[in-house]
Amino acid sequence: MSKKKATIKDIALKVGVSATTVSNVINKKGGRVSKEIIDKVNDAIKELDYKKNYSAQSLVINKSNLIGVVIPQTEQTRELLLYNPFYSEFISALEYEFRQNGYNIIVSGSPKDENNINNLLRWNVDGVIILGIYEEAFYENIKKMDIPVVLVDTYTNDEYFYNIRIDDEYGGYLATKYLLEKGHRNIGIITGILKKNGVAEKKYNGYKKALEEYGISINEEFIYEKSVDYEWGYEAGNIIAKQKNHITAIFATADIIASGLFIALFENNIIVPQQMSVIGFDNTFLGKLTIPSLTTINQNIRNKAVISAKTMVDILNNKQIKNKTNILSVDLIERNSVIKNI
Amino acid sequence: MSKKKATIKDIALKVGVSATTVSNVINKKGGRVSKEIIDKVNDAIKELDYKKNYSAQSLVINKSNLIGVVIPQTEQTRELLLYNPFYSEFISALEYEFRQNGYNIIVSGSPKDENNINNLLRWNVDGVIILGIYEEAFYENIKKMDIPVVLVDTYTNDEYFYNIRIDDEYGGYLATKYLLEKGHRNIGIITGILKKNGVAEKKYNGYKKALEEYGISINEEFIYEKSVDYEWGYEAGNIIAKQKNHITAIFATADIIASGLFIALFENNIIVPQQMSVIGFDNTFLGKLTIPSLTTINQNIRNKAVISAKTMVDILNNKQIKNKTNILSVDLIERNSVIKNI
Repeated sequence: MSKKKATIKDIALKVGVSATTVSNVINKKGGRVSKEIIDKVNDAIKELDYKKNYSAQSLVINKSNLIGVVIPQTEQTRELLLYNPFYSEFISALEYEFRQNGYNIIVSGSPKDENNINNLLRWNVDGVIILGIYEEAFYENIKKMDIPVVLVDTYTNDEYFYNIRIDDEYGGYLATKYLLEKGHRNIGIITGILKKNGVAEKKYNGYKKALEEYGISINEEFIYEKSVDYEWGYEAGNIIAKQKNHITAIFATADIIASGLFIALFENNIIVPQQMSVIGFDNTFLGKLTIPSLTTINQNIRNKAVISAKTMVDILNNKQIKNKTNILSVDLIERNSVIKNI
Repeated sequence: MSKKKATIKDIALKVGVSATTVSNVINKKGGRVSKEIIDKVNDAIKELDYKKNYSAQSLVINKSNLIGVVIPQTEQTRELLLYNPFYSEFISALEYEFRQNGYNIIVSGSPKDENNINNLLRWNVDGVIILGIYEEAFYENIKKMDIPVVLVDTYTNDEYFYNIRIDDEYGGYLATKYLLEKGHRNIGIITGILKKNGVAEKKYNGYKKALEEYGISINEEFIYEKSVDYEWGYEAGNIIAKQKNHITAIFATADIIASGLFIALFENNIIVPQQMSVIGFDNTFLGKLTIPSLTTINQNIRNKAVISAKTMVDILNNKQIKNKTNILSVDLIERNSVIKNI
């Protein structure tokens, strides 16, 4: 008969203190634990041959049932990106799914410094969900926490992390190809900064690939690269309206960009789609607010959130995860913002 | 010289356990604390004459630096209301303000049962921010936690709570009076359920008051009461378009309602504002997305969130709070969705 693995609970019972105290000693966390207790806990750890392990089975008593959720924060607004419905819709579905499984979420803007990561993680969260991409040092710090991390919309080859994302390049390809099939040849793209391995770059690569298939070379003038927000969509729309560079269709790489673009085109008396076709990306709630309604790439945000939560819950319940990277499908939603170019 | 008050830290040092263990004993929380330790802690409490107190000064060591934030959740969507930009903009600003002060927030949908409250509160949050109104039992449960609670957009006379809100009745009055001044007499109102002491009822009272000032009696047919979302704005817009009951202006009691209304009117070939004037409420980001832009009541959501966070931080830092109820001002933002009725 094999010996049962020792748990924090066993150590706590042996020493006669709370599991939290034991956990604090093991994780070298603050709290005013006397030297005497620390020694006793360490003795018991050796005696019972306790091994640290973050699966739920072994740590039942040490579970916080809290999940940290990190959302990008731009310097520009200095606030959470919940203004972008992509994030608010994602968080809504994520929170609900976690709550059904007995977890609550701590939502935090992305840390700009190491201190901030520690802030988020000192609560002894069971796991972390991270949206977007950050500096390398950020990931290295997260790894030190030794808890499960699910990255959403990140392209990484690091074996430590679980990944949930879509095929952004394919989405960009799909959007651009649709415009090409509708007879457009001068196609603008409004995008956030094209960071290496970021989703913006992937979407741009899809745009390029579709154009290449049609034998069209990239026109640098048609690339409007700055940020993913209403303001940039609006600004880029005003630039395009003034340039008169024969663009007949625009790939707005996020619905939030398209929403600003629509207003700028309206103010410049450019009618969508008769004088300008527009395709978005995300399929947020915003696509229902524009007039005309927005043709867009659907990435099923709710499903992405639910799968992110389920993956984390499965990891914490020690279930087998088939693939560390889960790539979700995208499709095109045809509405009324694209017309045939004649 | 007066005796210094005993703190949890003092008890922890005396007994030789962590402050968390002491706190668990005091708050009768789970954890595996031995009978022996519980007795020792209780003895020390008596001996040192410790008094429970939730001010930061006395509990420094027991602070979680976590704030619970409860957002309403409708049965309909079964998810957080972050779809309504009022909530996402509020949470964005709230999270940022708390983070600057060293706090993180646990965001949770509103509990439908008692169990769920306990879920949220078992993390030993330092305080709770609650948006919207709930059943009486919910507040009674919250009070048992013995931590500071800031209610946002609630009308209560309970001395236990701190309140941050606007004067919703005045806002409703302002919106309706503006339409009356523009010559409108048949004014519809699209609103959520008119619950006693809810913000919807207050806005409706303001609508009624303005009409009364103009000697106009309430026409029940002009009241469209159901829910605060895009869907109801859209549905009500379709009803109004078909009824032909001579309504020339509509008070949409939330921007999110107005956004759905705009689409329904567009689809029914009713031009805003030429054939129908519309005024919103909230001044969210949505008012920039409609065509034409939305005239609305501005409640400065960011300011409301910042003041809510600051109030909580002040309470936790034991600062004097002048008034338990803080009523913030509203004003009218004139854009392009209301026209003179001739």
